[in-house]
Amino acid sequence: MSNGKLTILGCGSAKPTKTTSPSGQLVELRDKSFLVDCGEGVLLTMQRLGVHTGRLYNIFISHLHGDHCFGLIGLLTTLGMLKRTQPMHIYAHPDLEKLLQPLLDYHCNDRLYDIIFHPINPRKHEVIYEDRTVSVETIPLKHGVPTCGFLFSETRRIKKEDGSFDHVTTKRYAYCSDTQYSEKVIPIIEGVKTLYHESTFLQSLAERSKEVMHSTAADAATVAKKAGAEKLILGHYSARIEDHSLFLNEAKPIFDNTVLAEENLVFEI
Amino acid sequence: MSNGKLTILGCGSAKPTKTTSPSGQLVELRDKSFLVDCGEGVLLTMQRLGVHTGRLYNIFISHLHGDHCFGLIGLLTTLGMLKRTQPMHIYAHPDLEKLLQPLLDYHCNDRLYDIIFHPINPRKHEVIYEDRTVSVETIPLKHGVPTCGFLFSETRRIKKEDGSFDHVTTKRYAYCSDTQYSEKVIPIIEGVKTLYHESTFLQSLAERSKEVMHSTAADAATVAKKAGAEKLILGHYSARIEDHSLFLNEAKPIFDNTVLAEENLVFEI
Repeated sequence: MSNGKLTILGCGSAKPTKTTSPSGQLVELRDKSFLVDCGEGVLLTMQRLGVHTGRLYNIFISHLHGDHCFGLIGLLTTLGMLKRTQPMHIYAHPDLEKLLQPLLDYHCNDRLYDIIFHPINPRKHEVIYEDRTVSVETIPLKHGVPTCGFLFSETRRIKKEDGSFDHVTTKRYAYCSDTQYSEKVIPIIEGVKTLYHESTFLQSLAERSKEVMHSTAADAATVAKKAGAEKLILGHYSARIEDHSLFLNEAKPIFDNTVLAEENLVFEI
Repeated sequence: MSNGKLTILGCGSAKPTKTTSPSGQLVELRDKSFLVDCGEGVLLTMQRLGVHTGRLYNIFISHLHGDHCFGLIGLLTTLGMLKRTQPMHIYAHPDLEKLLQPLLDYHCNDRLYDIIFHPINPRKHEVIYEDRTVSVETIPLKHGVPTCGFLFSETRRIKKEDGSFDHVTTKRYAYCSDTQYSEKVIPIIEGVKTLYHESTFLQSLAERSKEVMHSTAADAATVAKKAGAEKLILGHYSARIEDHSLFLNEAKPIFDNTVLAEENLVFEI
C-alpha cells in the first residue's frame, strides 16, 4: 500500500485555546492533497508548516459552524494573490456558496482561478468525489446543523495470473466531526484503516455532550471498536479540558490503538 | 502619565509567513481596551496571550482588505458563545456592515450582545470616538482602497493653583497602516509619542512599493522624523523579506528611535 499522510492543522473545538485552533486537516493520498474543514488559522498553520497548495484541488467542509469554515475566505483570497490558475473544488452544504460568494466578489474578484462549489446533502451517504485511485464518500452525522464526515478510499489495480486486473478498494481514512455518538456511521466506515473521531468531552460531561450533540472519548472509542477500525485518532477537544491525556485514558480501555491529534502532527494513514 | 500598552497580535502583510500573521493590535489606555484591525488569527493570538475581552468595547478597522478584517467574524461569534452581554462598537468603512451582517445572521444570531456599526469616512480627518479620557481620530491614508489610520489621544485634568482644572491632551499613539508615503499624515500626528507605521518594503523595492501603494522602512522613518514622533514601530512586513533587521537598518539612520513589531510583543505607549 502506498503511503498516505494526514496533517493536523487544527484540532480544537469552537473556542480556541492556547494549544488548539479550530478544525482543519490535510489528507494526502496517491499524490493528491485534500483539505478537510478550514477553521480560522488553517491557512496560517499551512504556511508555518510549508504546506504547498499546488496539489490541492479539493476542499471538503463537514458543516457550517464557524470553527469548520471561517478560514476559507482567507485561504481562497491568498491563493488568488499567489496567482493560482488551477481550479478549486469545494464540497459543502449549499448554504456555503451563498455565504461565501459575496465575500469572494468583494475581496477576491481579480483571481485567476475558478472556484467550483459542489453542493452536498449531508444527510445522504453517497460518493461525492471519484478519480482513478481515490474516492470520497459522505458519512451522515448527528449534530446541531446538517453535518457529514468523509470517507477516503483508495483503489488499486492488482494484476492477476491471466494478465487481467482486479480492482481492490481499501477504506483508508474516515473523518467524523462533529457528531454525537451515532451507530449509523459504523456500516459505512467498517474496516477503515484510520478513523479520526471527534472527542469533545469526557464521560464525566456526558450529559453536556449529548445536549450540544458532541461525543465523549468513550463514544469515539466505541465507534472505532464496533467498526473494526485499525487505529483511532481523537480530536476536537473542548476548551474546558486542558489535559488531553484524559481523553486517551478514557478511550484506550475500549479501543487500545488510540492516539491524540495535536496541531502540526503528521500521521501515516 | 499613566501607562498605556500596545500588544502586537499580527504584523505581517497580506500573505502570512512562518513568523507573521495578518494585522491586529490591542491598544490599552486608561483602563480601556481598543482593538485595531482584526486579520485572520487575531482571536487565536489573543487566546494564546490570555487577553481578556471584558474591557474591549471598540474595534477600529483601517480598511477592508482581508488581512485587516477576516478575523472579525470568528471573534464576534466566539464572544457570542462566551455569553457576552456588553455591546461591541465597530468603526469601519460602511461596506463592512454589508459584508458581515449576513454572516452574523447565519453564524451568530443567538448572541446576547449588540453589535453597533459606526460607518466612517476614511477620506476625512475627524474624531470618531471620545470619552472623558481617550479620543480617537481618523488619519486619512493613501492606499488602493479607502483607508485610514487612527490617532489615540489621552486627556488629563490638571489642577491649577486657583482650584480650577486645565485639560491637557496628549497624542499617545498613531496607527498608520496600510499606506503609501503621505505627508498629509504629518500635521495630524505631529508630536505623537508612539507611531506605528507600515513598512511593507525596503528602498530596494521602492518601485514595487509605490505600485501597490505601500511604504518602505525609509518612508516610515521620514514620516516619524517630520512629525516629531518620539518613537517609531515598524510592521506589516512583506512576506518577501524574511530578515526584519533589514527594515531596522534602513530606518535608523533617518529616525534613530525605531523598533520592530513582532507578534506577541508588548510596547509601552
